[in-house]
Amino acid sequence: MMKTVRIALDAMGGDFGPEVMLPGAALALERGLNIAFLLFGDEKLIKPYLAAHPALAAVATLHHTNVAVRMDDKPSQALRSGRRNSSMWLSIDAVKKNAADIAVSAGNTGALMAMAKTCLHTMPGVDRPAIAAIWPTIRGRTIVLDVGASIGADARHLVNLAIMGAAMARAVLDVERPTVGLLNIGSEEMKGVDDVKAASKLLREMALPQLDYVGFVEGGDIGRGTVDVVVTEGFSGNIALKTAEGTASQMGQYLREALSRDLMSKIGYFFARKGLATLKAKMDPRNVNGGTFLGLDGVVIKSHGHSDVFGTSVAIEIAYRIARHELLGQIRGALAHSHELASRAPNSQTAGGERAAAVPQSAQLRMDS
Amino acid sequence: MMKTVRIALDAMGGDFGPEVMLPGAALALERGLNIAFLLFGDEKLIKPYLAAHPALAAVATLHHTNVAVRMDDKPSQALRSGRRNSSMWLSIDAVKKNAADIAVSAGNTGALMAMAKTCLHTMPGVDRPAIAAIWPTIRGRTIVLDVGASIGADARHLVNLAIMGAAMARAVLDVERPTVGLLNIGSEEMKGVDDVKAASKLLREMALPQLDYVGFVEGGDIGRGTVDVVVTEGFSGNIALKTAEGTASQMGQYLREALSRDLMSKIGYFFARKGLATLKAKMDPRNVNGGTFLGLDGVVIKSHGHSDVFGTSVAIEIAYRIARHELLGQIRGALAHSHELASRAPNSQTAGGERAAAVPQSAQLRMDS
Repeated sequence: MMKTVRIALDAMGGDFGPEVMLPGAALALERGLNIAFLLFGDEKLIKPYLAAHPALAAVATLHHTNVAVRMDDKPSQALRSGRRNSSMWLSIDAVKKNAADIAVSAGNTGALMAMAKTCLHTMPGVDRPAIAAIWPTIRGRTIVLDVGASIGADARHLVNLAIMGAAMARAVLDVERPTVGLLNIGSEEMKGVDDVKAASKLLREMALPQLDYVGFVEGGDIGRGTVDVVVTEGFSGNIALKTAEGTASQMGQYLREALSRDLMSKIGYFFARKGLATLKAKMDPRNVNGGTFLGLDGVVIKSHGHSDVFGTSVAIEIAYRIARHELLGQIRGALAHSHELASRAPNSQTAGGERAAAVPQSAQLRMDS
Repeated sequence: MMKTVRIALDAMGGDFGPEVMLPGAALALERGLNIAFLLFGDEKLIKPYLAAHPALAAVATLHHTNVAVRMDDKPSQALRSGRRNSSMWLSIDAVKKNAADIAVSAGNTGALMAMAKTCLHTMPGVDRPAIAAIWPTIRGRTIVLDVGASIGADARHLVNLAIMGAAMARAVLDVERPTVGLLNIGSEEMKGVDDVKAASKLLREMALPQLDYVGFVEGGDIGRGTVDVVVTEGFSGNIALKTAEGTASQMGQYLREALSRDLMSKIGYFFARKGLATLKAKMDPRNVNGGTFLGLDGVVIKSHGHSDVFGTSVAIEIAYRIARHELLGQIRGALAHSHELASRAPNSQTAGGERAAAVPQSAQLRMDS
């Protein structure tokens, strides 16, 4: 039998807290996933849901705390008031103490990232964490990272992102040797940021066995599903993600208007409604809910704050897949191998030199200052 | 009567050359625009179209050259072989010599930008040119710049982009005091790049009369039409643009699949086809064809290389509106005013200091190296 995955769940996170997190956990179990839950939060609020979902109660242990990080807490505030005793912190800490394999929270992103960094620290060889998103494409799904954990990336960090993203693609997309592209403007070699060009050179030279580096991709390639993994620094990654979400909702609104503008259109909608339901399902952001924090000594999944029960169950299923594939161990191994390659490379000095002169310079996201 | 706008047209540019450029010019004239055309290109290829379009022939002067920049010429190559004598160069040069008010070309972007920079030079107070796009939104249209002329921007350049974008919004969108937002990740003041934060501070302090600065916007705000002008540096701007185009075509493909998956869906499509035609029109990229090169001593419009006759006519109409509103003069005046304000500001030193430490550092796009 498949090994049980231990998921630490911040039952208080998100706009709806236990009302959504616990039924979401119960729904994930209905898919036959072999999960043991560690639930962190206010027992008074959690117990009624355990009573209502006996299958969840059977695989859950409840860890009471009445401290919860609020959705509008600034990261520094959350760390001051919620460190060591909030449901968010305790969920992450369970991963650190190896009581859980992975943590899931719908709490606010800034606070969650600050706590994850403080509690778990970055992996050896990784300067900064990243957030990976699962992006629906014409051909299936693509992993895009970093979508906003930090701003700017030097060549070495971009290579790390490629390695971590490829490991995640193996876990979530079930591809053995994922294709990886570096996001750039213009596909000609001559264009783009120095860091991105240096990272491209490094990835070609290293010829890593875990991934198939295909070169530069442009913004339009993401939705086209040209590659399994798209790598970029967090500023442009976040803008790409938000812009795509905005465009999708814009198209959705155009479509609703088009199908309600006159009687004929409404009749058309009536006939086509089943076909259009498949469209709606494809565009449903709940199907890809869950930003994955990578680069830390432990994996944390951020479920969307507005998520409903279904969206929550998806984030939990993603956590399950990631933990079951032992993503962390895979990333550790791949990173160690790449660092060995880099140190052996005859021109590793050159790469370092390019990095030093690189534009834009790296900068940690100032979460709260 | 409205002043005649003199448009220098590179008749050889784009994938189709005269076959599309000249009927496109003729179509623009059918809308009653008061234009005089200066046509640059091979007279053997152009004359048949003038014979076929007498209304165009009546307002056009033909300037023969048999040198044309090819779509795959690198910028340096184009400058070597096409400087001073290609149809592209001569079109731009007509603006420089004040024989034309504005130039339109569908030639390759890199070559066109290199020639425009070499021929026209940047305006006083502007370091680098920018490309502005017209973005269809739920509420209408938004000007987004820079969508790829250069990578990185310091605070001062972002302020210049705001001023130039606002002037363009007045010309193209007919709004007296356009709202302007700075593209950032997260809407909290604490997030984002130092340059963007410094630019925000400058724009608030300057309180320019020509524009209404509203603060930070995110990727999702572009399609929502939250502001009239979205300002960002060229790397993230290009990625936003390409990502949105990719998402729109992805949605289009989903919709086609949804409406052809079974008989009922096809019947539905039959009834709703007129409503869906309005959707298609809204999504039609030809309606917003034309990237505007700003920041140079003369305005050049880049029509899409794949443009058809209709798309070409739209680019020409945009050129007409921009020239008629004397965009260049407006930008010159607004920039001069802002520089005066900046030099009078008590903390202009602070802004300079922030700029020096800014991340990402500015770097000119290396077009060809």
